[in-house]
Amino acid sequence: MYIILVYDIEMDEGGARASRRIFKTCKKYLTHVQKSVFEGDITPALLKKLQAELSAYIREDRDSVLVFKSREERWLQKEFWGKEDDKTSNFF
Amino acid sequence: MYIILVYDIEMDEGGARASRRIFKTCKKYLTHVQKSVFEGDITPALLKKLQAELSAYIREDRDSVLVFKSREERWLQKEFWGKEDDKTSNFF
Repeated sequence: MYIILVYDIEMDEGGARASRRIFKTCKKYLTHVQKSVFEGDITPALLKKLQAELSAYIREDRDSVLVFKSREERWLQKEFWGKEDDKTSNFF
Repeated sequence: MYIILVYDIEMDEGGARASRRIFKTCKKYLTHVQKSVFEGDITPALLKKLQAELSAYIREDRDSVLVFKSREERWLQKEFWGKEDDKTSNFF
């Protein structure tokens, strides 16, 4: 299946650390498209693995990860308005 | 068509203002789902209108709006991991 993943991490104490870990974990499975947005083809099994790994870093009471799933990539078109994000991939 | 819109605004001088305006504009056309994420059914004509309105606020050299389009909503499933975002809808 094809997914879009967007995370929103509360930038309190511990936020930068959580954000860094979530970023790195997503990058193992998906392609980085915008600051806190990833996308990619993934099997249900790997998606479960990703979710399990992320659950160690997501602080349930304040962080949020939003996942849109589509059965096929061809059902999704993507475009940038404004700057095509440089993705800050090397930021961490 | 159904779209997911994610914006990433550079938080420099003018960033808060740009962000506020982009948020308000998106809210006229779409449903707010996470901090800087909107989704919704929209006609191609209204999408053009949204893009035109946003272009007045997006600073081309640093802000980025990412739009995923799907022909139908039923091709997309959505789930939250962690906190279901309170969306800070009343933040502005």
